[in-house]
Amino acid sequence: MRIGLLGCGIVGGAFVELLNERRAAIAATSGVELELARVAVRSITKERAGDLDPALLTTDAQSVVDDPTIDLIVEVIGGIEPARSLIQSALRSGKSVVTGNKELLANVGADLYADADAAGVDLLFEAAVAGAIPIVRPLRESLLGEDVTRLLGIVNGTTNYILTQMSADGVSYAEALAEAQHLGYAERDPTADVEGYDAGAKAAILASIAFGEQVVAGDVYHEGIAGITDADIDYAHRLGYEIKLLAIAEAFPPAEGSAGRREIGVRVHPAMVPVDHPLASVRDSFNAVFVEGTAAGELMFYGRGAGGRPTASAVLGDVVDAAANRLRGHHRPVPTGARAKIRSIDDLASAYYVNLEVTDAPGVLAAVAGAFGAHGVSIRSMEQQGLGSGARIAFITHRAIERNLRATLADLRRLDVVAGIGSVLRVVGD
Amino acid sequence: MRIGLLGCGIVGGAFVELLNERRAAIAATSGVELELARVAVRSITKERAGDLDPALLTTDAQSVVDDPTIDLIVEVIGGIEPARSLIQSALRSGKSVVTGNKELLANVGADLYADADAAGVDLLFEAAVAGAIPIVRPLRESLLGEDVTRLLGIVNGTTNYILTQMSADGVSYAEALAEAQHLGYAERDPTADVEGYDAGAKAAILASIAFGEQVVAGDVYHEGIAGITDADIDYAHRLGYEIKLLAIAEAFPPAEGSAGRREIGVRVHPAMVPVDHPLASVRDSFNAVFVEGTAAGELMFYGRGAGGRPTASAVLGDVVDAAANRLRGHHRPVPTGARAKIRSIDDLASAYYVNLEVTDAPGVLAAVAGAFGAHGVSIRSMEQQGLGSGARIAFITHRAIERNLRATLADLRRLDVVAGIGSVLRVVGD
Repeated sequence: MRIGLLGCGIVGGAFVELLNERRAAIAATSGVELELARVAVRSITKERAGDLDPALLTTDAQSVVDDPTIDLIVEVIGGIEPARSLIQSALRSGKSVVTGNKELLANVGADLYADADAAGVDLLFEAAVAGAIPIVRPLRESLLGEDVTRLLGIVNGTTNYILTQMSADGVSYAEALAEAQHLGYAERDPTADVEGYDAGAKAAILASIAFGEQVVAGDVYHEGIAGITDADIDYAHRLGYEIKLLAIAEAFPPAEGSAGRREIGVRVHPAMVPVDHPLASVRDSFNAVFVEGTAAGELMFYGRGAGGRPTASAVLGDVVDAAANRLRGHHRPVPTGARAKIRSIDDLASAYYVNLEVTDAPGVLAAVAGAFGAHGVSIRSMEQQGLGSGARIAFITHRAIERNLRATLADLRRLDVVAGIGSVLRVVGD
Repeated sequence: MRIGLLGCGIVGGAFVELLNERRAAIAATSGVELELARVAVRSITKERAGDLDPALLTTDAQSVVDDPTIDLIVEVIGGIEPARSLIQSALRSGKSVVTGNKELLANVGADLYADADAAGVDLLFEAAVAGAIPIVRPLRESLLGEDVTRLLGIVNGTTNYILTQMSADGVSYAEALAEAQHLGYAERDPTADVEGYDAGAKAAILASIAFGEQVVAGDVYHEGIAGITDADIDYAHRLGYEIKLLAIAEAFPPAEGSAGRREIGVRVHPAMVPVDHPLASVRDSFNAVFVEGTAAGELMFYGRGAGGRPTASAVLGDVVDAAANRLRGHHRPVPTGARAKIRSIDDLASAYYVNLEVTDAPGVLAAVAGAFGAHGVSIRSMEQQGLGSGARIAFITHRAIERNLRATLADLRRLDVVAGIGSVLRVVGD
């Protein structure tokens, strides 16, 4: 089985190394002989890991895809172009493709699945979501009999590292971000991670597989973690929660007897998670995907979501699978399904944590409670901190519809007794 | 795809129910039409769930296996016979088989895999280990590129429920066991669970898949949880641990340059697990399998390990997979490999917790420390509780070989200053 590798950065380099280490064991256990045939890189002269034969290198990625002696393409360039065109032409020429490109799959995955299906070859992408954690294959295959109702994922290691530092060491968001950048966990421009774009792409892919309908990155509502304060973390701890950036995908069946379609809600935002929920113990840069199904109950998949070797392990698993499939003359069915009907964030329900700065005027609680009540948002618990001007009240609500909570916040802002609205966080997993 | 179901107890009944619920959705997403054709039961007259057509029932299981119109057999009878003969004849007549029978696979799995391979059909068994948790397929397929070095599993829900009660509520082993029996989590004769036989069978199956060599139930060393005391739990908490019944499978590569074979160590015993290890948060009757690999790092798979619907969900996932494979004219390769070379418990290494009752004589610590030192077991920490006669000392050792620890214990028993040896527990996951 001759492999063409597109891209030889951190993941690509680790893949070359791992392939060399594992080649003999794979041949012995799976009967698949893997050979690295060509490697497309941006620069031939850049220094490479010692175990990569320089004669394999080329800067012409298209020539690797066009090479008729190559059976299988591994794409680890990332981004939409040229990855999309290269994968498309590989699939159309009958090559199997393994990729870890979440951005590509979250935006134009359906077109690529159709190409793979038409050509009767594999398009595998375990590495695209949650790195080394086997989650794509379990969702596609193990849970075929299951009615998955909700996924909750910690799928961005950078933000989980930052939130863990804030929670454990009491450092500020800015300090934790700087530390993450220093350690190489966060990019110099951290927007894609901290604003939830990266998690959003992964949420779209997970939702598509779990629910069998097409969800794209643009369908995902997202909020980042830059507004989380030390005070929020303190409140969360006192109330028995940890704050995590969650990717959430939910399916809402149509009302009994209605002819309407099922709706899918997909969002990424920070959330308060009860300390005894399995996701609360997922620390540092680890990832986890929590799956809820009607028969299986609660499942969780935990592990390293990024890094060269963990991601390369997922890529190599897919390569062995795709190679074995080619030898046996078959391929895995690709995810199909119509475009999902997306339920807007305005119509999604959650419990909320709302932190208000209030004046000391008499009747403050009555006025505030009235604003919640006017929009049907009921209060589960409240806690006042401090007295006089600058006192704060933290509320946890029962489940409410987002648009009602927003209307409540608009009313609260207009109240004289409310000096300001601090954080508003959703509470998930109770 | 016509299904013959062997056994209709808790799991079989839940399977019938789930198949009815999910049939239409499965046909829509996987293109597989599933039909329950025959159901073999012990008694025709026993009351059944409402959605099972009584006309399908028979007490003649062999006639179901022999029925030429049936494509696929689901075996949920359990035990070795008649399950073994029925599965064998189903495989040999070209039917695919889905089973959740851990006892059978842990004892004679290799013969059955060979039968499936010879017939070119599937033998799938996701439900045999850790119920609803997808662990068999990820190990068999997702981690093909990975060098798995160790598995740590909480794979028996009954004992985990008992240990969770002891840890959280401070109840005794006897009280927690009685509560588990009252709730139906533990059998009236709890031996298979509390003595580690059930976990041992699952450990053998997991080790076989993870390492690609045959490990059978008889290869697994096991100790149960009946000796765990409230005092052990207290010590564990003070030292930062939880006590869990762990199934552990490890691979030991031959020394560099040696021609020897890799050895496999498989054991089940209670262990102290650090509170910040992901396994420490696995509570109540939940199961989890923690996987360590050289590239992927640490992975964990968490969920319900037992119960009708969770187990039926795993069975149905395998049924859909096997049915789709038949339609496409292929089957999954079965686990193969030679009999594993087993490393004896005597030669396995661990850190240990040792709790001694000592006299108040001067020089007690020197004498005790001398016994450890004489066998090369080094002490990482110690804590004395109480004074005078009846004082206790708890030690945590560095990693040591089991035979050296046992020699140390033999020497300690002979010391005048040692009134008795309390618990000895292995410490895992530091």
